[in-house]
Amino acid sequence: MSTVDPQSVIHNTSWFIGGHTGSWRITAIEPVTGVGLPPANFLNITRGDIDGMEEGEWELRGVTSNLRYTERDERNELIRLQAETGRPEAICAALIPIKKSQAWWELAQDERRAIFETTSGHIKIGIQYLPAISRKLYHCHDLNEPFDFLTWFEFAPEYSEAFEEMVKKLRTTREWEYVTREVDIRLRRV
Amino acid sequence: MSTVDPQSVIHNTSWFIGGHTGSWRITAIEPVTGVGLPPANFLNITRGDIDGMEEGEWELRGVTSNLRYTERDERNELIRLQAETGRPEAICAALIPIKKSQAWWELAQDERRAIFETTSGHIKIGIQYLPAISRKLYHCHDLNEPFDFLTWFEFAPEYSEAFEEMVKKLRTTREWEYVTREVDIRLRRV
Repeated sequence: MSTVDPQSVIHNTSWFIGGHTGSWRITAIEPVTGVGLPPANFLNITRGDIDGMEEGEWELRGVTSNLRYTERDERNELIRLQAETGRPEAICAALIPIKKSQAWWELAQDERRAIFETTSGHIKIGIQYLPAISRKLYHCHDLNEPFDFLTWFEFAPEYSEAFEEMVKKLRTTREWEYVTREVDIRLRRV
Repeated sequence: MSTVDPQSVIHNTSWFIGGHTGSWRITAIEPVTGVGLPPANFLNITRGDIDGMEEGEWELRGVTSNLRYTERDERNELIRLQAETGRPEAICAALIPIKKSQAWWELAQDERRAIFETTSGHIKIGIQYLPAISRKLYHCHDLNEPFDFLTWFEFAPEYSEAFEEMVKKLRTTREWEYVTREVDIRLRRV
């Protein structure tokens, strides 16, 4: 008996393939913490099955999933303010894969929430840049992938400075002390 | 470049294969909610890669992962009281795969925690049966599997009644209103 539902595979899993084709041109791949990723010219984002597709220089996989720390009031505020990805003016993007330490994952839920929001203000910082910078989070901690999260950001060129400011703020938080690997990939829509 | 670390696959993923071989004899497979699972005589529990292994009537996969709701004090209490699986006297076991509704997964973190513990006392109920009934949780919500969780319980035969009492208590909680599929598999160590 096949216990995997192929439809759910198609709906949940997204692949980010750095290679020779794709609708986003890679302008920079910078290692922020730990080992970087090999150079590639284009990023192909695709959902579901990649069997038979052209291989990339690297392939990263993540799933959209339930909220892990966001509380009801915060979610309402996010929904009220945020913009979807895919806006025609949002031709700049960043893909930021992150891995956190074993020490992070061994914390209890309230300890992680306290660092994530009470101390570091992760959600609060993100909200300051809405709707200009839209954001989509993919989880991969349970998928045996090299990273724990892939975060995709999209914005219009006039918000490039705001974007730099936002990532700088996040990287100085206490939460970021648990980041053991981070790569910063910048892109332009083709 | 291969971005998957084969070592991490080996360490994280557990397979529960219902078939003709295994160190646990299946004594019952009962559907509790929704569709059950096909009959099988033995359960083989294995970690990592199952390529080339004998196929079963069904195969369920899960990963051990970080705590999702448990807070620091609760975790300390659990660590203080709980027993590891694999005790020689614990020859009875249950494998209970569960799927929760879309409505559950769309709740914010504080809403799920409130139902899980404040209203339903999931952790509190489990603690009452420690160390007699040991428990191990495998996550599969992000793995495109037919279930969201696989919970493995082990206990000595004299705690069989206590075990029935515990699952009965859990199944009458508000949390269980979100369970859309549940199968109850009972086993004896070979």
